[in-house]
This record gives sequence, structure tokens and C-alpha cells, in this order.
Amino acid sequence: MAVQTAESTTNPTKPAVDLGPAAALSCRECGHRVPLGPVFACEECFGPLEIAYDFSAHDTEELRKRIEAGPANIWRYAPLLPVPADVATKPNINPGWTKLVKADNLARELGVTGGLYVKDDSGNPTHSFKDRVVAQAIEAARAFGFTTLSCSSTGNLAGAVGAAAARAGFRSCVFIPHDLEQGKVVMAAVYGGELVGIEGNYDDVNRFCSELIGDPAGEGWGFVNVNLRPYYAEGSKTLAYEICEQLGWKLPDQIVVPIASGSQLTKIDKGLKELIELGLVEDRPYKIFGAQAEGCSPVSTAYKAGHDVVRPQKPNTIAKSLAIGNPADGPYVLDIARRTGGAVEDVTDEQVVDAIKLLARTEGIFAETAGGVTVGVTRKLIENGVLDPSLTTVVLNTGDGLKTLDAVAGTGLTATIRPNLDSFREAGLA
Amino acid sequence: MAVQTAESTTNPTKPAVDLGPAAALSCRECGHRVPLGPVFACEECFGPLEIAYDFSAHDTEELRKRIEAGPANIWRYAPLLPVPADVATKPNINPGWTKLVKADNLARELGVTGGLYVKDDSGNPTHSFKDRVVAQAIEAARAFGFTTLSCSSTGNLAGAVGAAAARAGFRSCVFIPHDLEQGKVVMAAVYGGELVGIEGNYDDVNRFCSELIGDPAGEGWGFVNVNLRPYYAEGSKTLAYEICEQLGWKLPDQIVVPIASGSQLTKIDKGLKELIELGLVEDRPYKIFGAQAEGCSPVSTAYKAGHDVVRPQKPNTIAKSLAIGNPADGPYVLDIARRTGGAVEDVTDEQVVDAIKLLARTEGIFAETAGGVTVGVTRKLIENGVLDPSLTTVVLNTGDGLKTLDAVAGTGLTATIRPNLDSFREAGLA
Repeated sequence: MAVQTAESTTNPTKPAVDLGPAAALSCRECGHRVPLGPVFACEECFGPLEIAYDFSAHDTEELRKRIEAGPANIWRYAPLLPVPADVATKPNINPGWTKLVKADNLARELGVTGGLYVKDDSGNPTHSFKDRVVAQAIEAARAFGFTTLSCSSTGNLAGAVGAAAARAGFRSCVFIPHDLEQGKVVMAAVYGGELVGIEGNYDDVNRFCSELIGDPAGEGWGFVNVNLRPYYAEGSKTLAYEICEQLGWKLPDQIVVPIASGSQLTKIDKGLKELIELGLVEDRPYKIFGAQAEGCSPVSTAYKAGHDVVRPQKPNTIAKSLAIGNPADGPYVLDIARRTGGAVEDVTDEQVVDAIKLLARTEGIFAETAGGVTVGVTRKLIENGVLDPSLTTVVLNTGDGLKTLDAVAGTGLTATIRPNLDSFREAGLA
Repeated sequence: MAVQTAESTTNPTKPAVDLGPAAALSCRECGHRVPLGPVFACEECFGPLEIAYDFSAHDTEELRKRIEAGPANIWRYAPLLPVPADVATKPNINPGWTKLVKADNLARELGVTGGLYVKDDSGNPTHSFKDRVVAQAIEAARAFGFTTLSCSSTGNLAGAVGAAAARAGFRSCVFIPHDLEQGKVVMAAVYGGELVGIEGNYDDVNRFCSELIGDPAGEGWGFVNVNLRPYYAEGSKTLAYEICEQLGWKLPDQIVVPIASGSQLTKIDKGLKELIELGLVEDRPYKIFGAQAEGCSPVSTAYKAGHDVVRPQKPNTIAKSLAIGNPADGPYVLDIARRTGGAVEDVTDEQVVDAIKLLARTEGIFAETAGGVTVGVTRKLIENGVLDPSLTTVVLNTGDGLKTLDAVAGTGLTATIRPNLDSFREAGLA
């Protein structure tokens, strides 16, 4: 396994692997820096490592032009990501550049007057935002010489890893609880990688993966959200970049982001700050709001109680892609929501379903339950006077309704008639 | 209903509705021209009407620049479609500009050396190519003053109409057989329009719709694939435009297209011919191949028998989105395949499933059964020496595997283990 350590770097100012502007890994707690490598925890304080960049070479207008002339996917932002400059020439599923939909019908229903947009990530190759983060992990795995791509998953991530590994030429081995619903198993299995059922629940799967990473049997394995996590997580920055570029290189006033581990929200904040620092957008305030389901609302609960720490919960919600009871980035999310003047809110499963239907009926977008959470929370925040409807607002939909059909299974025929005009008229359909 | 007739046109050289370059409707059989309106059959010979354009105003290089500067959806081709010039400013679900994936892994498996591409229309808003045609129908419905959008459907079309109508502000009323699978009902019902179950089979649904169009009860109703069909069908031209532009304004040597009614294949041919006429691509030969499932192969059967007419079949295949036993455009398809030097071929359901898995395993693209048909037919045509693997070849995937999960339901776990390393090693996964 090509583990990158301080010893193997001959020139400490230049990383031994080419991951573009990524200069080092830096601890988010103590700031300790280590060379780029497949590590995720600080050796000093066990804090999470994240990518530190060197953007000093960029001229603002040159960079803007280069981005605008780039491909219609996340690699247009290659100069701002931990990937080599020629990344667009390598086999990858090339996610991103999804639609930012001006949602005028939804705005009318919610009373938003300042402009409402839905960033619709169901347009990604496997129809969730996970394609963005996995695409980054793939490039890190390539740089570190890994040959197998792996993860634990109960849903979107399994498909994203399976698809990306297939196209990029990696072996994949995805671990899931053995008793997962057949539909989800099929969605992950079709890409032809190893799909291993673990006799146990999701916690058992995760525990086993941690064991495997520390064992020689895991040599050459990149676990996208464990030893490749610092690279993987950066993929969420591209949501911030795309939103601003699609708004004409403008910051939105407000963004509503779903919270699972909280990583996505923190990276969107990081992405917005970078655009300001690079001069690509005007430096002015923005607010970030976090959205959870009531049945898994540890961050929302901490926010409302005024706490800085997040107390773990046992999840019980239909929004399964957000059902992380002990979110690693919870404290960072609390900090960002408070610092930017945002908030964290939650909605019931019933409100999630209502919001899925509202978005479908107004904008023709069929969202996953996580999209129901953000739209539902947006509505609640407006009703409570917390979110200002006169400001430009972007709501994230991170997944596709086709993957969570059960949530709206109650939806059905509005009428049943015999095949003739009399029956049609009797039903009042004319 | 704003039916457009010859009488209502004051200036016969200028259509009374603004649908951009669309000049008139022209009969494909006898050439008789009528003004633009919601009609679909020739009053002289009952032949099918299609759009006749006036492209005389275009300068080639100006047009190319205008297209390239256009939006990342089908409206970049507005100057070549029956839509007003300001179409991109109207609420529509804006399909198209889907990925043309260079499929090098699949090419190796199939022995294609001339360059193999998959045009992946699962990236459309409701994840099938139907979004392209419905988007056109929406703009025609707007021009003709319709207020309700309708269709008969058993699948992709119902969702595409429901979504597009919701966003564009039309009432929708979709007719389906009352006993359709619950999953398909949910996918169509979530957009909140009328979804009416007809007590009968799909033929009964179609018969009822024809009755409704001729009745006052259907006043103000646009049936996307009946009285709006000439406009609707033109949406498939955008597949040809995008493929050529994405190849760097080059014609592919060969295209493999699925056949349901056959309309898509004929419109792709029309689109390619227009690009040649407009000087946007070099004038050189291309071959169009048609793909069917063996269980519904009326066109393939006629092609192999050397017939000019197509004998209807009773469909029996898992490729339900292609299961039209009496394809209206069958004779035109036969003509195009023969004229261009292509062919029409079919594959068994087993070969369809194999091809879905092959595409997923090599390129990370999870196709609908229709995509299995085109990939499977491509493989068969190469094996039979009919399709030349040394030429640039484009294969269409027109839909999403998430909508036809049943087809690959046999796919599953590759191993089941206990959550420990010993069990992992015993399974030979290291």
C-alpha cells in the first residue's frame, strides 16, 4: 500500500503525489500538517485531517475563464480540487454540473420573493450527490496506487462506488448488511463488483471495515469514506462552486443543506469561503441552514438547546440517507450555522413526504427523502420567521425519488373509470 | 381548442403561431402542406404529418456559434426546432445535453477499435429520452392555447408528462391501465396531476384516448403523442444534434438506435440530414442500425425477410418500453436502415439482461431494458460481421435501470460473511 509518510517525501514543499493544488493534510483541530497520503486522523490529537491547498498561483480572471471553458462536470473546478490537472482525461463517471432550477412555482407556494432555486443533484450519473465525493476518492486512490475501492453502505454510496470503480478500472468490494432490501441490493450489484453481505447490522459492518483497514488483508484497499475520507469529502465543495457560477458568479444569500454526517455542509461553507478568497465572488455575508429529519435530529436538537456538542441518537426516520445518529461533523455544523446567521431545523416524516410531493407537483422534480427534508425544513423556517423569504435562497436536493419509492407509496390513481366517455364524464374529469 | 386551419391563416407564407423555424406541416406520404396546428394526419391521404422548416436565414458559422453559446440543454438547438426563439426563458424541464460517454472498456469487450460511445439519456430530468419529446409537446401546447396535457402510457411517458406539465403550469391527465404495477403508478402519480386508471388493457386505454380527442370533452387537451405528435416527435432530432456536436461537429460512422414506434430512429436520420444540409457537419455516409427485442421484433422480422411492410406482433418481452407490436414508423425505419447501409436486428430477453450487466460492469452505466437491447444488438451485429468494429460507433441508452429493476432482480450478493477477518479470508475476498 503506497502510504505516504513524511519520510518518503524528499522535498517537503512539494508533495510526492500529484494532486494538483492539494499541498498537505492539515488537522482541523490542532493545525498539525502531514504530507498527502491515505490517512484521516491526526497523529498528534486524533482530530480529522482535511486538505490544505496552495492556490497562490491563481490569477482571478484567468481562473474564471479557465473554469468557464472547462467540461460540463466537476472537473471544470480541477484547479480547486485535490486532483491532477489532467483529471478530465482519465476514466471517471464525471458527475456534477447538475441543474440549478429556478423554482418559481415552489417560491409562490412558500412565499419566497427573493428568488428560490433547487440544486438538483438527482441529475448525477447514479442519481445522488455521492457521485461527487466518490469521483474524488477515485482520483486519490489512483494517486496512492490502490487497486480495490471499498465502502460500507446501506444505499446511495454502494451504487456510486460500484459504478465509479467499474468505469475507472478498479476492483470494488462493497460491504452491506446481509438482510438489506432486495431492490437496494440489485442497484448495487448490477455493476458487477464484489458485494458482500455481513451477518449483522450496519454498526457491525462499519466495525468490520475498521478492522479490515488495520489488517494486511486490507492492503491496497481504498475505503472511500475512511482512509480516503479527506479527499472524498472535498467533492462536496463542488456544490458551492456550481451554485455560485450558475448564479452568475454570485453568492446566494441563503443555502439549505441536509445533514447526515454534516460533512457536506462544512465543505459547502469551505467552498464558498474559497471563492471569496480567490476573488471569484464578491465578499458578502451568506447564511447556511442545516436540515434534519425529526427521527434523526441530533444536530438540530443541539442547536436548539444552545449546545456545542452533539448527543448521539438512535435513528428512526424514512430519510435513511440522512440517518446518522452520531454525526462526525456535528460540532462544525453548529459552528457554521451560528457563525453565518443560519439555523438547524428538523421536520417529521409526514412533513418530509408532503415536501416531496410539493416539489414534484410544483417543479416536476421527484426528490429522495433527503430532498423532502430540505424542502420541508425550508417551509418550516419560513413559517417560523427564521429564513427571510425576501432573500435569494438555494435548497439542495441530493438524491432521487426513484430510490426511495416506499416513502410515497401511498400516492396513486386519482380516479378509475371504464373505457368510455360516459364514465369519464361521471368522474368529473372533463 | 385553438385548432389552426388554413382558413385562419391570413398570410399563407407566415404561420399564425410562432414556432420558430417551423413553417408548416407536411405529409410524409403525399407532400400536401397545411398550416401549423394540432393535427397529425393528412386530410388528403391520411398519411402522417411532420414539421417542414424554413432554415434559409441561417449562416453556418453564425449558427454554430449561437448553438455553442446556448444553454446546456436541448434549447441550444432552438433555431432548428419547432419552438419560439425565446423558448429557454419559459418554464420547461429543459432536458438534453446528456453525456456522450467514450466507452473504452466496453469497446475492448466488444472488439470495437474505431471508437465506441454511449449516448446516455438516463441523465434526463425523469431519466428517459421521453423528456426530449415531451418538452417539445409542451411548447406546441403553449402555442396552441391548450390547458391540459395528456397521454396514454404504461411507463416512462407518464412520468415525463406529469413532471413537465407540473413545471410548465399545465393541468395533466394521464391514462394508464388500472392494474399497472404499484411502483410505476407511484412514479407517475407523485407529480400531482390526474392519473386515471382505465378498466381494460393498454389497447383499451388508447382506444378511449382516440375517442376523447374527437369529443367536446377533450376540448383544450393536448395529447402529446396524438394531436401534438408532429411537434413531440421532433424532440428526437436533438439526439442527432448532440451526438454530432459532442463528437466535435462530426457525424459518427454508425448509430445503433432502439425501435419502439420507430419514430426516434427516423428523427435521428432527419436530424443528421439537416446538419449536413446546414453545413454544420461534413457530408459523408453514415449507417443507422435498428435494435429490437426478439419478443417484439416486427421491424427486424420484416428487415430480414426483405419486406417493405411490417406485420404486427403481439409483444412478449421484458423490454416493455419498446413493446409496440404495430410500429407506426416501421416502413420508414426499414427504408432508412437499407438506404444508409445499416440493418435491423433483435436479441433475446436473456441477451438483454446480459447486455445490461455488461454495460454496468464496464462503464458504470445502469441502463433500462431498452439500453440492454441496443448494447446486445451491437454485440450481435459485430459477431455476425454486420457492424464494422473499425468504425466510430454510437449506441443509444434511452432510459434508466432504476425503472426496470425487475429485469436484473437475479443479481445479488457475491458473498455473505460473518463480521470478522477469518470469515473474510475464508470467503477468498482478500
